[in-house]
Formats: sequence, structure tokens, C-alpha cells
Amino acid sequence: MDLKELGEFGLIDRVAADTVYDTTTLLCGIGDDAAVLKPTLGMVQLATADMLVEDIHFTLTTITPWQLGYKSLAVNISDIAAMGGIPRHALVSLGMPSQLPVSFVEQLYTGMKHLAALHHVNIVGGDTVASPKALVINVTVLGEVEPERVIYRSGARAGDVIVVSGTLGDSAAGLRILMQDMKVPCADFLIKAHVTPQPRVDIGRICSQYGVHSLNDISDGLASEIHEICNASGVGARIYEAKLPVSQALATFAAEIGKEATEYVLYGGEDYQLIFTAAPQQIADMQRQLPHITVAVVGEIIVKRGVTLISRDGTEQPILPRGYNHFR
Amino acid sequence: MDLKELGEFGLIDRVAADTVYDTTTLLCGIGDDAAVLKPTLGMVQLATADMLVEDIHFTLTTITPWQLGYKSLAVNISDIAAMGGIPRHALVSLGMPSQLPVSFVEQLYTGMKHLAALHHVNIVGGDTVASPKALVINVTVLGEVEPERVIYRSGARAGDVIVVSGTLGDSAAGLRILMQDMKVPCADFLIKAHVTPQPRVDIGRICSQYGVHSLNDISDGLASEIHEICNASGVGARIYEAKLPVSQALATFAAEIGKEATEYVLYGGEDYQLIFTAAPQQIADMQRQLPHITVAVVGEIIVKRGVTLISRDGTEQPILPRGYNHFR
Repeated sequence: MDLKELGEFGLIDRVAADTVYDTTTLLCGIGDDAAVLKPTLGMVQLATADMLVEDIHFTLTTITPWQLGYKSLAVNISDIAAMGGIPRHALVSLGMPSQLPVSFVEQLYTGMKHLAALHHVNIVGGDTVASPKALVINVTVLGEVEPERVIYRSGARAGDVIVVSGTLGDSAAGLRILMQDMKVPCADFLIKAHVTPQPRVDIGRICSQYGVHSLNDISDGLASEIHEICNASGVGARIYEAKLPVSQALATFAAEIGKEATEYVLYGGEDYQLIFTAAPQQIADMQRQLPHITVAVVGEIIVKRGVTLISRDGTEQPILPRGYNHFR
Repeated sequence: MDLKELGEFGLIDRVAADTVYDTTTLLCGIGDDAAVLKPTLGMVQLATADMLVEDIHFTLTTITPWQLGYKSLAVNISDIAAMGGIPRHALVSLGMPSQLPVSFVEQLYTGMKHLAALHHVNIVGGDTVASPKALVINVTVLGEVEPERVIYRSGARAGDVIVVSGTLGDSAAGLRILMQDMKVPCADFLIKAHVTPQPRVDIGRICSQYGVHSLNDISDGLASEIHEICNASGVGARIYEAKLPVSQALATFAAEIGKEATEYVLYGGEDYQLIFTAAPQQIADMQRQLPHITVAVVGEIIVKRGVTLISRDGTEQPILPRGYNHFR
């Protein structure tokens, strides 16, 4: 069955099931003109939105509907994590070609609901419309955070250490493997990093508890994110190639194709790990008190503007943001 | 200049200006990973989203960029009004062909900001991405309402009167005039109803103060909205053709083209007026205490399911929702 046969209201009935994972902050979800939400007393609210367009942000040859649903929610939860917050609710707008199979849309929602359930995020509304020429997904996520614990990207101070969570560059390597249909070792790990990234709400909450100075999620590559923090904070940064967290899988992949893993780490994008800066003592405390946390100190914030990389051989070179420009 | 030259960050800088109209509920707007919002103590939050796709919901031959920006915010503010609430913040995601002139996007935002300023709605975030094949706009609006004053569509009771605000059918007539480039009297009034509808936050707040029983906005035509209220409430309705509020402009237009104005009123859509039901005494009080309010009693809620229209000649006939199905 395709969407034309089922119709908009039939579709809404199907997707509205199993969308509530936390009733304490929800008075009314899908079904009226607007959702009715109950903010937690004393918390401030966070709101973020991302639009994903077919053949710009994803292509259906390299991602399944389930993964697409999962990922379109994940990237927004990551933005809430990047403020130190807890995600609470999502609104999902889908623009779909009318010949799209209903099963595609159901799988997309199943992937989204899987992640929503993991994070106790309610899907409370949105829109389902026709978009004849390309699949378009817009997800808005609302979250909460204690007002004294919001962390902006503008708080970095000279003397801070720069810390990142997890390993970086895996997602970009995974995308390359998918695009070129490469047969390489460790492909599964790298592809998984690309199609089902895990938003680091856990690390974001730790950051907000420890009162780190600045925080961003790594969506456009480490180089770009460090520049964002430095520009917002009016400082510079120095990072060390030898300290960048590279997975065994990425190292193997890079060796296999004769490329530097560092390229993927700096410019890869879509990691959805977190980058934060804090006083060295704060991070030392964090690492002592939470020994199992996978974070790595990769550099330091300095007074002098600009971002440089200290290579393994000790040479220092500027790194540019090399941000994406999708308008091309 | 087109978007390709300006780039995403250049565009964000341009549109982020003049987006704050109420600082009491805003801690941080555009510029970080998520907006930080301060809910009003004791209020519950409302959230709604609508996606508009080029050549499905609008066509650039019949609406200017300014009007498109205005209207895409208006339809969402209308959903907040339809809960009895006050709109507070908007997140705007735009998917745009890269050859779109920057001036187009600026005019779109100018129209949106015009309405945002009127309602003291902050534009706090969103996304700007490439969408090569069609312009796509997703707007999310967040609002607030006193918890005891939320009005759902499911509260209609047998014995309620059915009330609508303003006049209906004008927007659909305006669209027809635009699509067929008709030269008719009163065209300006009807076109204006279509391209710059005024969301009825004023009427919604009155409804919430008077504690009306059910409330909806009229986006898909009166027939469809009455059915929504009746289905959600488990009741039926009877409406009177002679009581339907028809503007002088629509009456003139309908006579000119030899059609019944009632057709436009029932099935036209995009009025963005409100429909509500309440005890007869509540409405009598409302009309006595607020003599300048433009609302009309058009029928009553009955026990028996189904919606019927009593024609001017006294005959009674069922009316169907005839809802839109954009998946065609």
C-alpha cells in the first residue's frame, strides 16, 4: 500500500501509536491542534530543529528507513546534549512522495521510536504532508536543563583544556564505505557510527554537573566545532594530533586506503560526540571520579586567536574550519 | 546574490537580526546548539509544527515571499490560538534551492518577523538547508496557557451552541481569484484573506477565559472542523446555512461567478478563524460583555452522531468532511 491509498489521517493513526515514553511532562500528545506539555518546575526549556533533505543530507541508497528515522531524531537529541540538557519531546514533520510505501514510513517511525524510547522522549506532534520531489524530514526536539547548568559554546577561557568524548572520524569513514560500497575490515563498526550515532546525553549531563566552561556537539567535524567555540568565546586553541581519539577500526581503515586518520577526525563530520572545555582541575576530577568515562584531552584554549594543530612530528600548522556549504 | 554565494552561515547572520520581541521568556535565541527558554511560572507549554511544500501548499506564482513568510508563521500561531494559548517562540527550518536569490529569503523573513512582532513571538532557532527541487518551510511554534484553561477539541457536549469567529470562505475565494487571475469586485479583500490570514489569538484567549467546551481553528474548511470536534467529542452537530457568516466580498464574488457562497464557507479551507462550542448562556454572556466581538452562532451540538446542514429552505442534509488528501 502507498500513501495515496492510506491518506493523511490513516497515516497519522498508524504513527501515533507508541509515542509516549514519559508521562510526567506530557498532558496531551498527538491529536489536537497543539501538544500540551508540563515543564519541570525550576527547569528552563531547550528547543532545537534540524531539517534533512533527500540527496542533500542522506540518500536512500546508503541508509535504511529505520536508520533514517533513528538518525533524524539522534541529531536533534545531540543538540540538546550539547547544552547540558535532557531531551523531553519531539515534533516530527515528514514531507513524502505519495508513492512512498506505507511500510517505509512505518519503518522510519520505528527507528525513531526506538531512540525515543531509549531517551524517554515523547513524540508529541508534527505534520505529515506530500513532497513530490524529495523526502524531507524536520525534527524539533524540546528539552530541559537546570538554569544554572546550561552550558553555552561561548564560555571557553584561555587555560582550559579541550576534551572530546568517544572516538572521532568513524562516521565519515562509514559514509565513504557506504558510498563506494567498499569491502574493508571493520566496515560494520564504521557504518554503524554513521547510520546510528548515539547522542551523548550522558556526557552532556556530566558536563553540566561539573560546570564545564563551554560545550558543543561535533556535527560538522572537530575542526569546525573548535572554531565555533573559539569564535563564540573570543579565544584560540591548540590541539595535538597524537592525542586525537582514533578508533582501531578507523586506524585500520585509514591504513587500508592509504589515508591519514587525522583527516577524518578533523574534517569528517557527523560524529555527534561532544567537545567541551574546562579548567584542567575540573577534568582531572571528572576523570578520577568517573574512571569509566571515555573522554580524551586533545588540546588547550589559548589567548591568541586561531586554531593550530601540533603534528606528531612537532610542527604546528593552522587548521581551518572547512565547514560544509550545502548551497552548491 | 544567490544562496550559493552567501553560504549558510552568511545567511544565518542576516536572518538572525530582529528576531527577539519578548525578552521575559527568552534566555538565548539563535546562535547556539539550542535555544534556551524560560517558561512562565504556572503555565503549561504548547507545541505545534507545520510543513509547507512548494507546489503542494503554495505556489510562487500566487504568493509573494513576504506573504509566504507571514503565512507560514500565521498557520502555526493559529494552532496555538486553537488551544486557548499565547504564542511565544518559533523555530523556522527552510529548505531552499541554492539559486534562490538572497533577497527572496530576506523578504520571506521580513514577512515572518512582521507577524512575529505583532504577537511578540521570538524566532529562536531552526535550520537553513539546501533543497534543490522545491522550497520547503517547517515552522514550529511554542506557546503557553494556564493549565486550567487549555481547551481541547474533545469537550463538545450536546446542547452546546457552535460559534465561529470572523467570516468564512474568503480565503478559498481569494485563492481561486489568484489561480485563475480573475478580475472581480472585492478581489483585494478576498486575496488578503488568503495570503495574510490573521490568526485569532484574541478570540482564543477569550475562549479560554470563558471556559468554552471545545475549540479548533478552521484550516480545512468548516465542514471538516465540525467533524473533527464531533468525532473527538462523540457527538453530532446541526448547522444553519442562514447563520453562516459570509462577507459582503464573498457574497459579491459568489454572485458574480454564479456559485453558492455556502460552498466556500463549508469546504473552502485556510480561513484560520476559530470554531468553538459552549453552553448557550456562556455565549450570551460573552456577546453581552464583549459587544464588539465578531462571532456568530451557526448551529448546535446534538447527541445523534453525524453533521447536518439546515438549508435556507428548511431541508436538512448531511455534510461530509471532504478533507484534503494531499497524497494524490
